Parts: sequence; structure tokens; C-alpha cells
Amino acid sequence: MPDKKLHLTAFMRPVSLHTGAWRFPNSHADANFNLTHLKSFIRKLEAAKFDAFFMADHLAVLNMPVEALKRSHTVTSFEPFTLLSALSQVTEKIGLAATASTTYDEPYHIARRFASLDHLSGGRAAWNIVTTGNPESSRNFGRDEHLQHSERYKRAREFYDVVTGLWDSFADDAFIRDKESGIFFDPDRMHVLNHEGEDLKVRGPLNIARPVQGWPVIVQAGQSEPGRQLAAETAEAVFCSPRDLEGAKALYRDIKGRAERAGRKREHLKILPAAFVLVGDSVEEARGKRLELDSLVHYDSAIASLSIALGTDASGFDPDGPLPTDLPETNASHTSRAGVVKLAEDEKLTVRQLAQRLGGYSGLAFVGTPESIAEEMETWLREEGADGFTVVFPFLPQGLDDATQRVVPELQRRGIFREDYTGTTLREHLGLPRPENQFFA
Amino acid sequence: MPDKKLHLTAFMRPVSLHTGAWRFPNSHADANFNLTHLKSFIRKLEAAKFDAFFMADHLAVLNMPVEALKRSHTVTSFEPFTLLSALSQVTEKIGLAATASTTYDEPYHIARRFASLDHLSGGRAAWNIVTTGNPESSRNFGRDEHLQHSERYKRAREFYDVVTGLWDSFADDAFIRDKESGIFFDPDRMHVLNHEGEDLKVRGPLNIARPVQGWPVIVQAGQSEPGRQLAAETAEAVFCSPRDLEGAKALYRDIKGRAERAGRKREHLKILPAAFVLVGDSVEEARGKRLELDSLVHYDSAIASLSIALGTDASGFDPDGPLPTDLPETNASHTSRAGVVKLAEDEKLTVRQLAQRLGGYSGLAFVGTPESIAEEMETWLREEGADGFTVVFPFLPQGLDDATQRVVPELQRRGIFREDYTGTTLREHLGLPRPENQFFA
Repeated sequence: MPDKKLHLTAFMRPVSLHTGAWRFPNSHADANFNLTHLKSFIRKLEAAKFDAFFMADHLAVLNMPVEALKRSHTVTSFEPFTLLSALSQVTEKIGLAATASTTYDEPYHIARRFASLDHLSGGRAAWNIVTTGNPESSRNFGRDEHLQHSERYKRAREFYDVVTGLWDSFADDAFIRDKESGIFFDPDRMHVLNHEGEDLKVRGPLNIARPVQGWPVIVQAGQSEPGRQLAAETAEAVFCSPRDLEGAKALYRDIKGRAERAGRKREHLKILPAAFVLVGDSVEEARGKRLELDSLVHYDSAIASLSIALGTDASGFDPDGPLPTDLPETNASHTSRAGVVKLAEDEKLTVRQLAQRLGGYSGLAFVGTPESIAEEMETWLREEGADGFTVVFPFLPQGLDDATQRVVPELQRRGIFREDYTGTTLREHLGLPRPENQFFA
Repeated sequence: MPDKKLHLTAFMRPVSLHTGAWRFPNSHADANFNLTHLKSFIRKLEAAKFDAFFMADHLAVLNMPVEALKRSHTVTSFEPFTLLSALSQVTEKIGLAATASTTYDEPYHIARRFASLDHLSGGRAAWNIVTTGNPESSRNFGRDEHLQHSERYKRAREFYDVVTGLWDSFADDAFIRDKESGIFFDPDRMHVLNHEGEDLKVRGPLNIARPVQGWPVIVQAGQSEPGRQLAAETAEAVFCSPRDLEGAKALYRDIKGRAERAGRKREHLKILPAAFVLVGDSVEEARGKRLELDSLVHYDSAIASLSIALGTDASGFDPDGPLPTDLPETNASHTSRAGVVKLAEDEKLTVRQLAQRLGGYSGLAFVGTPESIAEEMETWLREEGADGFTVVFPFLPQGLDDATQRVVPELQRRGIFREDYTGTTLREHLGLPRPENQFFA
């Protein structure tokens, strides 16, 4: 597999996804509403040739106990479409992925905004399709009852059909603009969708020309059964959260297999696990930085995370002792609980450190030197655990600088990451074909 | 009134609002999806110290006979939020007004996007509240029946309360960001809206800090009875379409009076009639250019406009003769019909020219030299027909260049338009106060 290369996208919150990061030395605690910082971040990512900048999003102030809420920088930030449109003007090549919900928005609006972002950015837009699982969002959109999981996925599938149908409203050559004859466009090259399905009824046509990329790139994060199936049928990049390489390989095989059974090519769907990347001069120094970062998570909110993971109240445990070995039997998922116990043992964490890890960021992490991290990434690529990674930075700006200035050059030295962009659109960066218009040759 | 000055906003479609403009010599027929042109336009408007750039919008491909539709450049363009967010990064001072519908969107989304645009632009956002009157939009949003006019305005009023309530979710000083104590924000300075009204149910809080301007500037265009009342209660800038100075003065008095009766200050609501501005070296040359522009409207679509205005089929009239004097009695509005007859007489227009005027742009127009146009604008300002204008350019880029480089200097020479911006936010340009937070002192 000499030519196989990694794809890298940056999964961003302005202050980082780690809940203690805003307190880290030199962090920009005001970045949620300070565009200067975000412009600097995306320019650095583009200089490092990342495939895309991917903005995380929520449709509510997250439901947390007030003691945790008041310590969280993740509560408020820019709205993704407005932010990414602004950032499109300070960059030229990097992809721009926005999260948009199929449960709390209208397909006409979603189709239109992504098409517009794609035109504005010269073909760099991607849609991260989410079905919005948190019930507090429903109450911001007039509903007491949150839509059931399977209902959300059924609607999402139909929503996708409508949005992609609307993107194909005009043939690529519909706009003639012949000043002499006065014909602006050929109405025979315009398609009226007239969709009437179980959940949605949308006439069309979309009042915007076909996107530069044909369709913006489709991204999805689901790992549930309907989530995997939706991804296999529709997604071109899958953002997932395996815990380790074995889990990743199983997920990779499963989703690629489903895609093939749905009549798609394996290589037209990229598997990009989320990976927290923390760089040090030595593995020990990197681990020390991680403990320092975790220590900034307040114990009150941290211990709540540990209690939830264990399924038992952990607030009575000695914070500075090891995790008790005589945990009571509970209803907590065995997998989740076993993972927590193993984590404490492997890294010799105290109860406090374990709680702060869970309250900070506890997903897949590559913590080490540029060489060790590049080595891990290369292994995942070669063993088909990943086609690349959705990189999570532990803190900003330093964590992003370390990844772009230290890890990326090591990946390039190994020949598994591009030295420069070879195309101009996100589809070209990801090696994805431009979809044919389903209504016009 | 020595200090009274005009406010000028530019009412934009990328190729102009005039339906023949894309065929005009040197026009940018591709501007609907060519951001380079729009960036150039807005930079010129900012250099001329315009208050705001105002993007017209629709939520559908407009319902026209196919013969007219295929000749129209108004069918497709960028979506306003994505466009204005992009343009915020190539400008520093000019206001950015987006149209958003209260009938086909959710208040949480609308509040969030305008707040985000306001943060991204440093306090330059304005919301043009529309209730979306065209029935073809309803079919793009799952509805067969269009909401009745009075129902739309009732919902709009409640929608406004929800959006402004969401903007006030956080006190201006809520975000403490004390790295030492770990407190990111003060939960006592966050308000949960818990709105439950007749049409809307929205919990809140909004997941975004209070906008730079407190609230983005509220703009409205309604001239109907409920439209005027909604404007008087809520709008800070009214975009209206009087036919002449007498009509404008009556509308001005009416809306300002209603605002006072609603407990507001007259000067906190700016009346900005739409005005088509076409400049020539002489009045005759300007009128000639207008005839040339109108002549680019195809006769088939033009004659349909005339038939509608007269309430009778005009396709049998001699295109190159005068309007027949023996028009049959019809159900057409007498005002509209009398206006058309008067227009034909005043400007000695043939049937063809009259039809092309109606099919092109037939609203209030200032057609003349920089001096004559400035004189008219000054009269409207002094006689309280307007606090400024929503300028419509006949063709681009030339019409915009003429207005900014020839009319604006003449207005400045007369002391009725700013030489430079004195503030940084749109509220400051318009002389509007920053609203108090309704939930926090």
C-alpha cells in the first residue's frame, strides 16, 4: 500500500473539546467569540495541508448540573454556517465542515446554505449530518417529546434524499446567460423535485445553482446500528470513536462492507476516527502534560462523570487513593465499567486523576512524541483501522501548533501525508468523485 | 434641521433588481455566484460610507410563466447568512442586513445566526423581518396552504419576542473566564426564556453570548395595516415603497406616530424608502439610459406585467403606439391603473416602453444628474418624507459607481451625508441606542 495516505480533519471547538483546556497556560479563554483566534487556527491548519476544519456544534446549552455548567467553556460559541462562511474568506484550500441537524431544520434551508457555502468557498463545503440526540434541543424547537432514535434516522434518510435532490435542481450547464438572445437559463435544465414522502414534503427547485462540488461532501458520526447503515448508504467520511485499533478495524470492516453491499465503492467512504493528539518531547513528558491538563477539570464535575461511568456514587472514594477493588454490582454497562477499571490500572491513576480524565476527554488518544504518534497513525492506516483521523486538540493554540508543526512533518517524512494540496475542492483532497446529477446527463 | 443627515443602505441583488440589467453593457451577468463582484461592490459601498448592505431574498424560485422565468437573473443566488458572513471579512464598518422569514424558520435558529453574524462582524448585523408572502415558498416547506396574512403577522410579533428574548439569554458581563477559580461564567447571569405562546414554544437559553449590538438592528418592509403596526412596535429601520413625496410624508407621519403611541422615540425608527437611482450627465441622458435599460426587458414578459397592472389583456395593443384611451372597465385596483396611465402620459411612453418599465423596475426613481438627485433627496429629508433611502441600483457595476462616486460626494457637499463613519457598529451609524437587556440590569 505504498501510495495510501492519511486524511486529517480538525475537530474544533474554539477553546478545544477538553473541558479544562480554557484554564491551560496560554490558552485563549475568549476564543468562543474572538474570530482572530479562529482565523489563526484555520490558517495554520491550511498551512499544514489538513483536509478540513470541522466545527462541532450543539442546538442548546447542554444540560449539566450548574456546578459543572458554570465551569464549562463549551456552552456558547459561533453558529457554524456563519463562522465557516467567514473563515472561507481567509483561506483558499482547506475544507469547511458544518454540523446540521435533520431533526430540527428544514431540508430547503439546509440544502440552500450548504450550496451557498460551497459556492462561496469554491467547492470546500461538507455536511456533517446529525440527528441531534440530546433531549434539551427539542425544547428549543417547540417539542416536549424528543423524537425516538429510529424515527430520527428514518427522517434523516429521507432528509438526505431531499437535500441531494434539491442540489440537483439545475444541470451544471443550465445557466446560459446569453445577453444577445436574453435567455438567462434553460428551463429544460431545471428539475422540480416534487418530493412527497413519509416525513417531508418539498416542492423545489432550490433557488441556487448546483454546488461547485456537485454535492458538498457528506459526513456522519453515527455508530449505532441505524447510524452505521445510514453512513454506509450516504456518508463519504465517517467520523467515529473506536476505543482501540481492534475496535476500529471491526468498525472499518463493517461500514466498508455495508457500503459495498449498498453498491458503493469502499474507497468512496473514508473512515476517520476521532483522535486526541498530545505531543511531548518524550512520551513521559506528554503524559505529564495530559495529567496537568486533566487536573484543570474541577473535581466536583469530574467525580460526577466517574460516578456515571461506574454506575455507582464515587464521591465517597479517597480522591488520592487508587480505585477501590470492591466496586458494588450495578446496572452500568460492563464494557464501560471494565474500560474505566482498565484505564485506572494501565495508567496507575488515582480516583481524582481517573475522574478528571473522564470529565476532560476520555476518547481515543495518541499521547507521545511526534515519532510515536506518527508511528501509531501509520499502523492504523496500514492495518485498516482508519483512512485518517479527525484530530482533537487537547488545548489551543499549543496543541494545534504541535500537531501541525511537529506531527505533520513526521507523517510527511514517512510518505503518508500530502506535502501540498493537489486539488482545490474538498472532494479532491479526499479523493472522492463529483456526483453525477441524478436528473440530468 | 442643520444636523439632520441621510442614511443610505444599498438594496442588493448581485445583478441588480431590474430584470433587464444582466443584459446591460458591462454588467456582470455571472454575479449571482461570483463572489469577486460582490466583494468589489460592498467595498465600494463602504468607501462611500453607506450605512448598510442589504441583501434581498426569496425562499423559492419565483412563480413566473416560463417565458419570463428563463429570462430572469433573479431566480438564483447566494443565501444571505452565508454571503453576509463572508462579506463581513472583507469589510470593517458597513452594516450587513439579512432577510429572514418568521413563517418558515425557527426562532432559535434565527436568533443564533444573527447573534453569530453580529459577533463575527463586530456589531454590524441587521435582521429584515419578513413574513414571506409568496405562496410558492410554502410548498418548499411542507405546506400546501399558505398561512393567512393576519396569521403571519401574529406569528411574526411573537417570533420577534422570542428572538429578542433569546438574544438576552446572557448578561453582557456573564462571562467571567477566571482561570484561577475555574469559573467560566456566572449562571445567575444566564436567563432561561421558557417561552410558551400561541404559536411558539421555546425554552432557551440561546447558546451564544449577547450580540455586540445587544440586539442586531431590526428592519421591516411591511406597508399593510398589520405591517405598519409591527414596524411601529419593533422596527428600527423601515424599508418602504412610497410612490411619491406626498405618499411618503403620509406614511412617515403614520409610522412615526404609531411608534410614539407604542411608547417609542420617533428618532429610534428610521424611514428609508426604496429609491432607484440612475445618474446621467444631464437629466435627458439619464432618462435615455433608463429607456435603454428598460428596452432589455423582453416584450413577452413585459406585456404580461402591463396586463396585470391594467387588469386587461394588453397583448393586442400596438406596441409602438400610445396606451389606448378606451381601456375597458376591470377589477384592477383603480390606484394602480391610474398610476400606469399617468406614467404613460408623463413620460410619453409607448405601450412597449410602458410594459418594459413595469416589467423592469417601476418603483420610486430618482433619474437625473448628481445635483438633481441630491436635491430631491434633500427635499425628502427636509420635508420628512424620509430619513434616508434604500438605494436600488439600475445596473451593476456602473449604477453603483455612479451613486457612490457622483451622488454621495454631492450629498456630502450639501452637508447631508457623513464624510466618514463615526462609530463601528450599525447601531452607531444609524444613531440607534443599544437595547438594555430585558432580564439583567
